[in-house]
This record gives sequence, structure tokens and C-alpha cells, in this order.
Amino acid sequence: MKEKLDNLRAKLKDIKNLQAAEAVLGWDQQVYMPPGGSEARAEQLATLSKIAHGMFVADDIGMLLDDLAKADYPYDSDEAGLIRVVRRDYDKARKLPSELVAELSRTFSLGQQIWTKARAAKEFDQFRDILGKIVDLNIQVAEAFGYEACKYDALLDQNEPGMRTAEVRLVFDALKSELVPLVQAIAKQDDKVDVSCLKQAYNETDQWDFGLIPLKAIGFDFARGRQDRSVHPFTTTFSINDVRITTRVFKDQFPSALFSTLHEGGHALYDQSGAPSLEGTFLAGGASMGVHESQSRLWENVLGRSLAFWQFYYPLLQEVFPAQLGNVDIETFYRAVNNVEPSLIRVEADEVTYNLHIFLRFELEQDLIEQRLRVADLPDAWNAKMEAYLGLTPPDDAMGVLQDIHWSSGLMGYFPTYALGNVLSLQFYQQALKEIPSLEEQFSKGEFGELRAWFKEKIHRHGRKFTPNELVKRITGVNELDARSYLNYIKRKYSKIYVLP
Amino acid sequence: MKEKLDNLRAKLKDIKNLQAAEAVLGWDQQVYMPPGGSEARAEQLATLSKIAHGMFVADDIGMLLDDLAKADYPYDSDEAGLIRVVRRDYDKARKLPSELVAELSRTFSLGQQIWTKARAAKEFDQFRDILGKIVDLNIQVAEAFGYEACKYDALLDQNEPGMRTAEVRLVFDALKSELVPLVQAIAKQDDKVDVSCLKQAYNETDQWDFGLIPLKAIGFDFARGRQDRSVHPFTTTFSINDVRITTRVFKDQFPSALFSTLHEGGHALYDQSGAPSLEGTFLAGGASMGVHESQSRLWENVLGRSLAFWQFYYPLLQEVFPAQLGNVDIETFYRAVNNVEPSLIRVEADEVTYNLHIFLRFELEQDLIEQRLRVADLPDAWNAKMEAYLGLTPPDDAMGVLQDIHWSSGLMGYFPTYALGNVLSLQFYQQALKEIPSLEEQFSKGEFGELRAWFKEKIHRHGRKFTPNELVKRITGVNELDARSYLNYIKRKYSKIYVLP
Repeated sequence: MKEKLDNLRAKLKDIKNLQAAEAVLGWDQQVYMPPGGSEARAEQLATLSKIAHGMFVADDIGMLLDDLAKADYPYDSDEAGLIRVVRRDYDKARKLPSELVAELSRTFSLGQQIWTKARAAKEFDQFRDILGKIVDLNIQVAEAFGYEACKYDALLDQNEPGMRTAEVRLVFDALKSELVPLVQAIAKQDDKVDVSCLKQAYNETDQWDFGLIPLKAIGFDFARGRQDRSVHPFTTTFSINDVRITTRVFKDQFPSALFSTLHEGGHALYDQSGAPSLEGTFLAGGASMGVHESQSRLWENVLGRSLAFWQFYYPLLQEVFPAQLGNVDIETFYRAVNNVEPSLIRVEADEVTYNLHIFLRFELEQDLIEQRLRVADLPDAWNAKMEAYLGLTPPDDAMGVLQDIHWSSGLMGYFPTYALGNVLSLQFYQQALKEIPSLEEQFSKGEFGELRAWFKEKIHRHGRKFTPNELVKRITGVNELDARSYLNYIKRKYSKIYVLP
Repeated sequence: MKEKLDNLRAKLKDIKNLQAAEAVLGWDQQVYMPPGGSEARAEQLATLSKIAHGMFVADDIGMLLDDLAKADYPYDSDEAGLIRVVRRDYDKARKLPSELVAELSRTFSLGQQIWTKARAAKEFDQFRDILGKIVDLNIQVAEAFGYEACKYDALLDQNEPGMRTAEVRLVFDALKSELVPLVQAIAKQDDKVDVSCLKQAYNETDQWDFGLIPLKAIGFDFARGRQDRSVHPFTTTFSINDVRITTRVFKDQFPSALFSTLHEGGHALYDQSGAPSLEGTFLAGGASMGVHESQSRLWENVLGRSLAFWQFYYPLLQEVFPAQLGNVDIETFYRAVNNVEPSLIRVEADEVTYNLHIFLRFELEQDLIEQRLRVADLPDAWNAKMEAYLGLTPPDDAMGVLQDIHWSSGLMGYFPTYALGNVLSLQFYQQALKEIPSLEEQFSKGEFGELRAWFKEKIHRHGRKFTPNELVKRITGVNELDARSYLNYIKRKYSKIYVLP
């Protein structure tokens, strides 16, 4: 068995290297590539994914997996984990023809370029045709994978292994039933949060430099990663020792860059903290997009928007921006960065309304994939749901349906994992608090090492070895996603900021 | 035949895309990769070159080439050019086992990382072992390719197709016989050039920004390329529409960054100006390293260090650096940037002594490859030759044997192409002057379009279609490399700067 496993590992290593190369090309595409490079880049990426896919779906890998199915490695071992995860990936990959894989890559890569221009021009029409193709390709993928209840299940499963649309709907219904009334109750309040301290000009370089301080403090290792600028912030990983994040900085949108840095920093901690034994294997990475997002949302919100965090960082921030914040007390600042207010842009949304943006996308994606909604009608549908959930109408497509990069790069069935991440972040964090009651006291001293170590031990080091449900079970003892911890957290936090019924 | 050619093209396209991916990873490695990423990057590059090589040497490509040998496309056509060039590449590639190709890639990639550290530490000892391995691998490559007169021929042929060591030696002997006495005559002069205007602090950002002005003026297209910083300036190309250059900027080494920008800009013009029909094919790129270098050295020196160039740019430069240059007249500045003086660093050397640096490397490389010199003895040999050619002894290895990136990344048989490029640049430029006598008048008005168009027509658009000798013949009518034009240029130029016998 040892020999067969080594054989499998050797074959997989080349495939992982090709995938890492794809990731480097994707990073460059979004961060530094000149506009002229887009067509050639799309072809390069298509070739890489086609070859990687072709190598992966080879019969001999299937035969090795069949043989290795008889091995009796302990469930928690790297060996058993690898065999499980590769089997799952392999069975899915076998269902996709290599030419479709190349076509996906080429289209998604061009889609990003077209989206960038359409968004700058604020014109959905420029993006419509390629989005139509992207939806069609996603439907083809869903058909190829197969599904029980609905096509969307197949797409969701790519991002959240084992998760079904109906389960997500249950969780989202639970969230909706409390968050929608909460947003309405807050909107009705007389005691508005004063956000004027944020509505000032903040020097971009100073914002960037300040963001690096907590980024390093939470444990991002710059010897094994870097931060650059991009239109849409993201994290990408080429190796446990080369994890890249991006952010964007706007003079008049403080502190958006800081929270984006903490968000991507949360993703990066996950990827920088995998067990070295998983480096370069199919076990490297995160258990799912939702679990990954539990980390980013945790460091961004549960930590980054907490009073404890600012008790430590606010004096430093006041030093960097004395003109803007010198006369603003911490309580005012804390309330300002936690102001709940319906807004148009998901990534700038507060913790509470954020989920409403996800519900909207989750519903529209299903409508597109199940072919109940035509792409041409998407902007109207978007605007109607914005009105229904948030009472707002986007002034243009850039502030509406064109705001996110995801669809342009082919990601459908991905958005729900953001709200699932919120839910998971609190299931995990409640457990961490039980085991380390002094956490918030530590934060107020700028100490994050114990929480980071806890996550490394419980989640990060395992990479993809366990499914999301297995992790939840191992960590919390319960068997499934449960919105209760998250809703309790929201209600507890916001009833201190607002006077709520 | 058409079908077979299309079949060949389709197979080659994936290989070119893999090579472009390699180039992106190589660019990132030198420009943005965090130190932690080096090991994984070496593995990723090794996988890419192994797979590209494996796909290229497949029997079916050989069979297609055999069949296509019978086709009668016109010699100058893309079709005939492709068949010629791919045949040449294929026959060479077939001689290298794929595992050796992966080993080369891995070693060269690690070599660069080790070199970077050794150079920072100024310790050759840290670099010795990997350099030994690199020399061994180069010998293995030479043996695999085969050669008539000497192993070094095989390495030279990789960079300068068809060129033999003995031919290079002839050209270098011609250069030496006049340049060495010239350097000595200049050294003996009483009328020293006053370089004090350059020995001041020049703000790095202003240097960078100023360099962009002539870079754009000579025709570098930023919509299809970019410039970044790196330890060692270089040019790399992922597509005709994505050509990247790098430079380095030092406050106290003005105008090194500017000339480096013009140098790499010259390379980039070549790659940005290939015929669109060659995009993504094996005909994209340059005829040889020497021909490529003829372009970079031309824009850097023949143009960038000419009086005509500075007649246009000096007033602008004075505006950017009034404190440093406001009171310096153009004649003084022109002489300063053309000061001939033996120095330790090749890339900072003046036009005349530059070639001496190349002679040294050419001789040492042959000694290493022919195993007449042990790697452990290289620093002493280097220093002895520096003393012999330039009368200088490096204070440390960073200023001596460790200064160049080339050996660390496996390049041997490459340095001579720099001096060959000097020679070629003048063979071409003399012809351009014959056909367009007003060129220097144009330069003095900041106009470079006609020279650029001439080079595009004569050289750039052809990519790799013709060999260096074919190009020389097509352009100048003579059949070979000839140092005469270059030596005449040097003597004419420097007898105006210095009083020479």
C-alpha cells in the first residue's frame, strides 16, 4: 500500500504544481497584468487547467484509488484523509470533459476582464453576453456532476462539500426571521449612530500602513506572504509559505481597507497555518469555502469590530489620524464602525445587513441556474430584491448587479458560503470562549496568539482532511450548522449599541 | 499539409502556454515573491518545464515535422519559418531527458534564491555548492546536445543559434585589440571627465518617473506591458501584448536606473513589435540573445548616451533635478554619462569597458565548462582577470563574482551575446543611418518613431523566423558579424569626448 500511495502522491504533486501555477497567473491577472495581457492569459489559464484536469482524471489514478480504498489507515491520518479527499475530487473531476474544463477557464478569465470594463463603464449590457455564457457553463457543470433535488445543489457542493440547497435555505430562514426585523427596528430608532468621524478624508498610505499593524499582530507572516492592491480584495495561496492577500484603499471610505485587510488576513492565517505535512498535497487548503469564510469573518468582525480590539488599537489610530480622530472618543468610534444601515455594496455592509445581501444573491443565483430568470432580466430582478430586503435602489449597475467579481469569474453557488461563514464563525468562537474565557481581555491588550493557536489546532492544521460537518462536530460536539450562536452574538452586541425592543 | 500544420500548431500552442506560465512564475519569483515561496516555486517551475518538455518531444510532433519537411512553403512565410524553427528546437529538445529538464529548472530556480542570499551576505562560499551543480548540469546539457570543437559550443548555440566559440573569439579578439589600448589611452589622459554632477543624491521616485518619459517616447506601450523593480533588471514576455521590464533605482547611482530602463525598454520594443500572426507560436520572440541585445544596447547607449538624445531630454531633466543639474551645462553632463573608467560592476560600466567585463566572463565560463577551472577557485580567477583587464580588485564577492544573476539561474554561454549585441547594434544602426540620414536630427527633437519603425520592419516583426546571420545578410548585405562598425562608432564618439592619439 505504501508504494501505491507514494505513486499516487507523485502523480498528484505535478497536478498541484499546475494548480499553483494557475493560482499565480490568476493573482497576476488581478493585481499587476496590463490590460493587453488578458486574451493570452485566458489561453494560458485554459491550457493549465486542461492539462491538470487531464492528468488528474487518468485511469491509473482511479485504479490506485480503488486499491487504496482497501487500506486501513486511521481515519485521522494524513494517508486516510488524502485517499478520502482525492477520491471525492476524482469522482467529480471524472464527470467533466477536459475540453469543458478549458472552456470554463477561458471563459471565466475573459469574463473577469469584461466585467472590469463593464463595471467601470457602469453598463450591465457589456457584461450580459458573457454572463449568459457563464450561467450556461455552470448549468453544464451541474448537469455533468448530477444532483438529487436541484441543479444548484451541484454547484453548492463544489464550495461546501456535502451541503444541500435545502439546508442552506433552512439556515437562511432562521437568520432572516430575526435579522430582517432587527434591521427594521434599528432603522426606526431615534438614537442614530453618529458616523461623521468616518466621513472624512483619510490619507491612503497611512491607511495602508496602519492596516499592517493588526495584520502582523494577528499573525500574518510577511516572510511567507504579501499584500497588494486589487479592484476586488481576495486571498490566494501558492504554498503554505506563499499566501497572498489584496486590499483596496479609498481616501473617503475609511475604514474599509482596514476591515478588508483583516478579512483577507483571516483567510491567510488559515492557509499559512496548515500542517507542513500537507504542503503541496491535495489536503492543503481549507475544509470548505464556508469554513474558510468563518475565519475571515471572525477576524474582520467578531474581532475587528469588537470593543476589546479597539481598546488596544484606537489610541494608535488616533495617533496616525489626529486631525480626524483626536477629539473622537472610543465609544463614538466603536459605534460608528458598527453602524447598522442598509447600503448598496455588500463588501462595505455592516455585520447585520451583510447577510441580506447574501440572501439576495442566493435567490438570484438559483433563479438563473434553474432557468426561472433570464440574464437580460437580472438587473431588474436585482434592483427589485434590493428594494425588498434593504429598501434601496442602486443608482447604476456598478453599485448594483455589477459590484461583485464572483459571477464574472464563474463562481456560482459560492455567495451562500459567506453567510454560512458568519454562522460557523460564531459556532467556533463560542467554543473558543468556553475553553479560553480570557480571550477578550487578551484582545484588549493586542494579544491574539492564543486564539490563533486554538484555530490552528482545531481547524487550520487539518487543511481539507475533514468535512465542514466533521469539523463542527469535532470542535463543538454538535452535528450541524446552527444559526443560534450567531444570532445570540448579534443580538447581544447590537442591543448594547442600540436600544432594542 | 494544411491539416498537418494545423495539427502541429494546436499541439505547440499548449506548450507555448506552459512556457508563458513558466515566464509568469519566473517574473513573480524575481519581482514580488516573498522569501518563503522559493522552494514551492522551484517545484512548480520544475513541473511546468517537465510537462512542456514531455509534450514537445512526443513522437507525433517529430512525425508531423517529418511530413511537413516535404511542404514547399516560401522560405519567408510563417509556415516555412515555423517548420524550420520547430525542427531545430525539437531536435535539441529530444536530446534532453525530461527528468534532466525538471532538474535544471528546479536547480536554477533554487540557485537564484541561494545567490540572492549569498550576494546579500557577500559570501561566495554560500553559493559555491549550487554553482558547482549548475556547472555540472550545463556540462550534462552540452554532452546531451553534442558538439564538434568544444562543449562550450553547445551552450553558446542555445543562445546564439549557429554561433561557434571560435567565431566569438575572433570577434572578441578584434574588439580587444582596439578597446584595451583605448581604455589605457583614456586612463592616461590628463583631461579627466568631471563626473561630480552625477555623484549627488537623486530622489528615487523622481528618477523612476523621469525614466518613464523616454520609455514611452521610444515606444514602450504600457497598455501591453509594465515596469517593476527587481534586484537585477530584466525583460520577460508572456505575449506580444504583455511584456514586462524591471529596473532598480538607487539614490546615489544616478543615472543607472534611467539607462537600465532604456536597455530593458529596447528588449521590450522587440517583443512588443512582433507580427501579430506570430503571437503564441514558436516564432514569437527574438532571433537570438545577441540580436535581442543589439536592440537593448542600441536604445541604452547609441541612443541613450548620445548628444542628440540629451539635446532633447536634458532641459527636462534639469527641471526635475534643478538643485543637482540647474548649473551644469549639457556638454558637462554628456561627458559625465560617457565617462570611460574601469569599474567593478558590469551593468554600471561605460560602453567601452563594458566589453572587457564580457571577455572576462566568456573566458571563465569556458574554463569552468571545459573543466580547466574548479568552482572553488572561481573567485580568485575572477579577481585575477579583473586585475588583468581593468586593473581593479573587488573588495568583496558581491562586487565581484557574485554580481550577476546569470550563473545562478543556469545561464552559461549567454554573456558573450552581450558583446555580440554591441557589435550587431552598430551593424544594424549604420544601415539605418544610410537609409534614414536624418535620424540624429530626429532624436534631438525627441522623435524615435522612424527608427523604431525601421527596426520593426527589418527585425522585430520577424520574431524567430530568421537566424542572426540571415538577418545581418538581409539587412546589411554582408554575411557575418563584423566588429568594424562598432569600433568605428566607439572611436568616433570617444575621440570627441577625449583627446586621443
